[in-house]
Amino acid sequence: MNINEYMEQVGRQARSASRAMAKADTATRNRALLLIADAVERDSALLSAANQRDLDAAASAGLAPAMVERLALSPKAIATMVEGLRQMVALPDPIGEISNMKFRPSGIQVGQMRVPLGVIGIIYEARPNVTVDAAGLCIKSGNATILRGGSEAIHCNRALAAIVAEGLQQAGLPAHGVQIVDTVDRAAVGALITMPQYVDVIVPRGGKGLIERLMKEATVPMIKHLDGICHVYIDARADLEKALPIAFNAKCHRYGTCNTMETLLVARAIAPTVLPRLAKLYETKQVELRADPEAHALLAGYPYLAEAVEEDWRTEYLAPILAVKVVAGIEEAMDHIDRYSSKHTEAIVTEDYSAALRFLREVDSASVMVNASTRFADGFEYGLGAEIGISNDKLHARGPVGLEGLTSLKYVVFGHGEIRS
Amino acid sequence: MNINEYMEQVGRQARSASRAMAKADTATRNRALLLIADAVERDSALLSAANQRDLDAAASAGLAPAMVERLALSPKAIATMVEGLRQMVALPDPIGEISNMKFRPSGIQVGQMRVPLGVIGIIYEARPNVTVDAAGLCIKSGNATILRGGSEAIHCNRALAAIVAEGLQQAGLPAHGVQIVDTVDRAAVGALITMPQYVDVIVPRGGKGLIERLMKEATVPMIKHLDGICHVYIDARADLEKALPIAFNAKCHRYGTCNTMETLLVARAIAPTVLPRLAKLYETKQVELRADPEAHALLAGYPYLAEAVEEDWRTEYLAPILAVKVVAGIEEAMDHIDRYSSKHTEAIVTEDYSAALRFLREVDSASVMVNASTRFADGFEYGLGAEIGISNDKLHARGPVGLEGLTSLKYVVFGHGEIRS
Repeated sequence: MNINEYMEQVGRQARSASRAMAKADTATRNRALLLIADAVERDSALLSAANQRDLDAAASAGLAPAMVERLALSPKAIATMVEGLRQMVALPDPIGEISNMKFRPSGIQVGQMRVPLGVIGIIYEARPNVTVDAAGLCIKSGNATILRGGSEAIHCNRALAAIVAEGLQQAGLPAHGVQIVDTVDRAAVGALITMPQYVDVIVPRGGKGLIERLMKEATVPMIKHLDGICHVYIDARADLEKALPIAFNAKCHRYGTCNTMETLLVARAIAPTVLPRLAKLYETKQVELRADPEAHALLAGYPYLAEAVEEDWRTEYLAPILAVKVVAGIEEAMDHIDRYSSKHTEAIVTEDYSAALRFLREVDSASVMVNASTRFADGFEYGLGAEIGISNDKLHARGPVGLEGLTSLKYVVFGHGEIRS
Repeated sequence: MNINEYMEQVGRQARSASRAMAKADTATRNRALLLIADAVERDSALLSAANQRDLDAAASAGLAPAMVERLALSPKAIATMVEGLRQMVALPDPIGEISNMKFRPSGIQVGQMRVPLGVIGIIYEARPNVTVDAAGLCIKSGNATILRGGSEAIHCNRALAAIVAEGLQQAGLPAHGVQIVDTVDRAAVGALITMPQYVDVIVPRGGKGLIERLMKEATVPMIKHLDGICHVYIDARADLEKALPIAFNAKCHRYGTCNTMETLLVARAIAPTVLPRLAKLYETKQVELRADPEAHALLAGYPYLAEAVEEDWRTEYLAPILAVKVVAGIEEAMDHIDRYSSKHTEAIVTEDYSAALRFLREVDSASVMVNASTRFADGFEYGLGAEIGISNDKLHARGPVGLEGLTSLKYVVFGHGEIRS
């Protein structure tokens, strides 16, 4: 069987399993999650052994240390996976909920029912825990799943897939409800993203390079975000007791996350006060500041200071580097954001009521905040209970995507024999 | 300027105008709608003259009579356009609504704000009234619009576009908030559907041929439906007082609409009673029945009877023709629907509570009905107030699409200085 025939078979099996997954009741889907959690716990030694084979292969292939780190499945990571599955059981079932049933003048009653999307394809690199997290979210939301993990994690993913399939079957669900693409052939990804007849949506989890490659070829819609060039704007009427901790937290809490601030905008009226005080905080973390001429002058003497160039406004550093710009006020701040933001998350710090409302309304990003750190843009912090990914697109799901993003609303009509006249 | 440069300019102007359209308040957008309505009324003679030029050109080019009919803009059609705009004013403003604001344990309050998508591209054929209807819906929902009408309606569309631009400007909105693609060059469509940097979504309104062509090339997402192969299933426990009128209405109310029934499924237990009685109704309209062998036997003697072939189950007739099949029961009915439906609209006729619930839950179509005619699958009948199109896709909007389908939800966060720990 060549790779296209194999993927065709995986797709057909997923589509076929999706009907049973969709109609399974809440208790059955929750039972599957609990059975999988128990089996992961029971087989943790086996999983560690499989992971060790991947780690050994990675070492002899000379993989980058960062990649090896992501590949490792520690006993703590296994325990977290198990806990994650058990927490999903406690989440409300999104499926079957009927909302807004209203009588119409014709006599029919019309509303919407939340239903699974059908088949979800997940494409990810290294981290084997995604296999179980993503499978769990798709089971909870009544979808069938095709998981394409990184080839470097193949042994661990195979072991996890066997556990998941066993749990599904013990719960009375089809074993093909969750499948892994069991090949290291890279052509499998190309096939997966061009099978709209079998796959309803692709959720890619990985770096910008992966997403850009997929975007060029995919004919299946994706829930994705390319990058996070997030801004904090400190308004002239900001409370510095809030502005300084927020600007420090948004940059320094974690450097490698997509909701980390990459550009700081400061209103001219307050910049001479704010920037030197912020510099003292950033200096403790040796954060490099790439400043426009006006900010550069106000930061004179800062040990990690550089001149910002055009490219800095477009860069997601994912590192202790921050672009800094002085702006006239909210208008110029919003113009800058409109031009350079990746539409992920932006925050204003202000005590000005009208400025806060304008920023909330007019900034066109997935998350817009007043007086809070951009680091809050996260499914768990927002109360979604879980996160399958983040979307920077405007259609379907936008921002952190939880279980609802894996569902769709269909219209349901309760009639009493009505005909249209 | 070549066609790509021209479309690039149109796109850039739309993107630029979209910011002003998005932040305009409710009163301003409504004022624009009223000014346009007044101007269409005032200039109706001018519009009729422009339409006459299109009709003359169509006549000398030998256009098909059906096309010429769709091209005609009668005084009644003009009055309907005007009334449509005034009704849109009365609809609630979808923009800016904030929902589900909830406090989180961190102290932030998180909810979602409904915002415009940005720039909507509408591609349509003939009917010049779409120019004003679509422009109105996009203005109401705070979007900028690029309209690409059929080249055969170019004179009328130019006159309408001038009226719309004037109304926008008088209301204080950018004239480029609504633009028509003012060229008959067909390459303009190819450019429009491949400018994701300028266009957020395409709504194609037209026949299956148009949609299929666009699907092959578009890189901008579309709100679309290809066809409507809708089913009615008459269950063994159907009330015939409901089943007969519904099956007649779903087929014969209008033949050319996408929510018209194309295949009738009848439970074996009730088929010998139902089919002969239905045949009497269909005979009054000379409906051709293409029956599977079992139904064929029960319909013996019907004057417009034919044997169904495989292709019939996949055909949207848009004509007084109906495919008919006898099934064992709900299971076989749902299997048939799963295999052949275009996932537009399906109905069950039954008094059986459990069968009704199963059908509602398990049939994976945009609209699923119990004891009502499929003809109700319509934005106005559903109470959306207006309809920009119908979607058979599962992502974003599904089923009849009203103003909400032209919007997106962004997360908004009210903070009080919170940082993430």
